[in-house]
Amino acid sequence: MSIDQRLAELGITLPEPSAPVAAYVPAVEANGLLHISGQISFAEDGSLIKGRLGEDVDLDAGIAAARRCGVMLLAQIKAALGSLDRVERIVKLGVFVSSAPQFTDQPKVANGASELMQDVFGEPGRHARSAVGVAALPLGVSVEVDAIVAVKA
Amino acid sequence: MSIDQRLAELGITLPEPSAPVAAYVPAVEANGLLHISGQISFAEDGSLIKGRLGEDVDLDAGIAAARRCGVMLLAQIKAALGSLDRVERIVKLGVFVSSAPQFTDQPKVANGASELMQDVFGEPGRHARSAVGVAALPLGVSVEVDAIVAVKA
Amino acid sequence: MSIDQRLAELGITLPEPSAPVAAYVPAVEANGLLHISGQISFAEDGSLIKGRLGEDVDLDAGIAAARRCGVMLLAQIKAALGSLDRVERIVKLGVFVSSAPQFTDQPKVANGASELMQDVFGEPGRHARSAVGVAALPLGVSVEVDAIVAVKA
Repeated sequence: MSIDQRLAELGITLPEPSAPVAAYVPAVEANGLLHISGQISFAEDGSLIKGRLGEDVDLDAGIAAARRCGVMLLAQIKAALGSLDRVERIVKLGVFVSSAPQFTDQPKVANGASELMQDVFGEPGRHARSAVGVAALPLGVSVEVDAIVAVKA
Repeated sequence: MSIDQRLAELGITLPEPSAPVAAYVPAVEANGLLHISGQISFAEDGSLIKGRLGEDVDLDAGIAAARRCGVMLLAQIKAALGSLDRVERIVKLGVFVSSAPQFTDQPKVANGASELMQDVFGEPGRHARSAVGVAALPLGVSVEVDAIVAVKA
Repeated sequence: MSIDQRLAELGITLPEPSAPVAAYVPAVEANGLLHISGQISFAEDGSLIKGRLGEDVDLDAGIAAARRCGVMLLAQIKAALGSLDRVERIVKLGVFVSSAPQFTDQPKVANGASELMQDVFGEPGRHARSAVGVAALPLGVSVEVDAIVAVKA
């Protein structure tokens, strides 16, 4: 089964890969590793998912925001590689959660992106990860996730 | 001298590598680089080292917390590679310090992990690094450190 | 035209590469990728560019601070590789902006470093990027930027 078939099975439609909001590119491949720029949380309707965990965004909304970052990562990977079937392994996710100082459930939020990768890719979707709470994110979004992906030779 | 012998000489006992607190894996090797997930600060007794630098954690406690993250990184590297002697080079540490806005000694805190790597590995333990102060960390810990390690062919 | 000639054309003078403020090294090359430590914002006169975006540093000053981090990255890359002509590609910049909670223009700030890389290297200077707002940075600086660079074989 191709990854596109797997996405269809999961009911996931990839969005248009978003253009960078500034002077950089969505992804660069070098030495077998694809580095993907931090993807900010967009809702399915293309609006930004904004707000801070522990303040005006609850845990479920944060998890959903992280999953949407993951969907946009998939869209960027597909645009960069031509096909998601060229993914050898999701190597690392870097998850940044806009957090009030007392919010400490960044791992649960980050699981929104992590579980998506495992659902879509299976074993090759299991990745290393860091998850931290930051003071503020671009355009006021709730979550930003970047990634490193190993590409099939 | 093996790295295990060096650890013994330094009086360092590796803990059980902690299980990820969420849906990811501790380490992924791809193209000769091992990416290790962010390790949060656990004390020797297995309890979490919590609190914020510049607020309720002093500098010495922060340095000790970063060192403990480093010890857990060693445990994860050993679990992933089978032996610490397979480390070619510690390439990069990413150090996240839970920080009150006026706390600016992140480099001193991060040295707790950096000096450990140099003590254990010598020249191959000398690494690139970033150290930043973040609003909040998983489970309320004081420090989180991730790593990239080059693996011997 | 060599990159040094291009720097001269742009009127950019590289500073002495700053010594790490702690127990690590400026850059490590492994498997064709050079990882450069987070560079903090120094002004041309060698003083630190301090302060927080959205608080006591305005957007233009933040952009200038990010550009100065980029200039220091260039100095570190040159010191590590001997020549900037050995750069195959700027792969990734990680941009950390000291941010008040309501400041959300991290991408504009980060462009100070990103546009520099494109000006200096052209197409090979176009990189992946993450940009986040953090609670505090080392020594109170406004911006810190780290980088991954692909090196010519």
